[in-house]
Amino acid sequence: MSRWEPGARERLVAAAAELFLERGYEATTVGEIAARAGVTERTFFRHFADKREVLFGDPEAYNSVFTDAIAAAPMDALPLDAVAAALRASGGFFAGRHRYARIRQRIIDANPALQEREQMKRLHLTEAIADALRARGVRDPIARLTAELGTVSFHQAFTRWVAAEEERDLGDLAVGVLGEVRAAAA
Amino acid sequence: MSRWEPGARERLVAAAAELFLERGYEATTVGEIAARAGVTERTFFRHFADKREVLFGDPEAYNSVFTDAIAAAPMDALPLDAVAAALRASGGFFAGRHRYARIRQRIIDANPALQEREQMKRLHLTEAIADALRARGVRDPIARLTAELGTVSFHQAFTRWVAAEEERDLGDLAVGVLGEVRAAAA
Repeated sequence: MSRWEPGARERLVAAAAELFLERGYEATTVGEIAARAGVTERTFFRHFADKREVLFGDPEAYNSVFTDAIAAAPMDALPLDAVAAALRASGGFFAGRHRYARIRQRIIDANPALQEREQMKRLHLTEAIADALRARGVRDPIARLTAELGTVSFHQAFTRWVAAEEERDLGDLAVGVLGEVRAAAA
Repeated sequence: MSRWEPGARERLVAAAAELFLERGYEATTVGEIAARAGVTERTFFRHFADKREVLFGDPEAYNSVFTDAIAAAPMDALPLDAVAAALRASGGFFAGRHRYARIRQRIIDANPALQEREQMKRLHLTEAIADALRARGVRDPIARLTAELGTVSFHQAFTRWVAAEEERDLGDLAVGVLGEVRAAAA
């Protein structure tokens, strides 16, 4: 088995999702995930710190979906418009991941420790978006609060996207929720 | 030692905060917390499920500070005004807890598992506020999104309140941040 076997990470994620659904999250071991993916446990731990992390991807790559879009927004865009661009960009990232996202959500909803980790992911995304806004010269508290409005919108849109018979683009949904947030704040 | 010794819970909280500061959170045991508070370990576990919970109080009592104020708002109050009343009510709850809140925050900031728990507390508060708004006839998505605006405001205010030389009433600060949130969303 090659040390840098291509696709090992993706196979581990898929194998973990299958096993968590079949046996439950608690009952599944790292060894079983590695075996199902056709790699060694050592390979698992080259990609993920522990069993939980297999469901949370690469935080840098995830946050960059949003922060790259903010950096790319026109310099005269308002902070909230830059955040709207970030929400729209999330659609492309999640396209093709709808089925996996629903399976993953069912697993997370059944496990408090995973819900805690999910909340931290949200906090880190908020902080990354706030930093991206600050890098454009947006000052606090506007940078932080605009970032919070963005992650509230994204996570509400995500909840709808994974819960119901919702096939629309996640980015479109999130931009729509941002509009609802603005109406709620008016 | 009486089974229902008055004040045991409060003494356990104070003892835990002292020990966490002196020795660090990880190095402190439940037995040490109980001994410092002058109670048995069994008494500790009558009040708290584990060491972590000693820092997170009674979630029902905490959420009620906000939800009781929402229930008590005039029936013709707008959702955001009912939430503002809840933020103002937090000031009374936290008055006299400033020193403890700062000590507690330092402990939480040093421990990722406690930060995760803190984020869950925030999520549960958001859900409780949304439910309190729904009980007033506010419909989704307004109920949920207005609740999110409330907890964003509260937690930003709380961060300022524990971080700096900030001696103003937490409720006043939180209502002020809600105004900033509304400006950021405008």
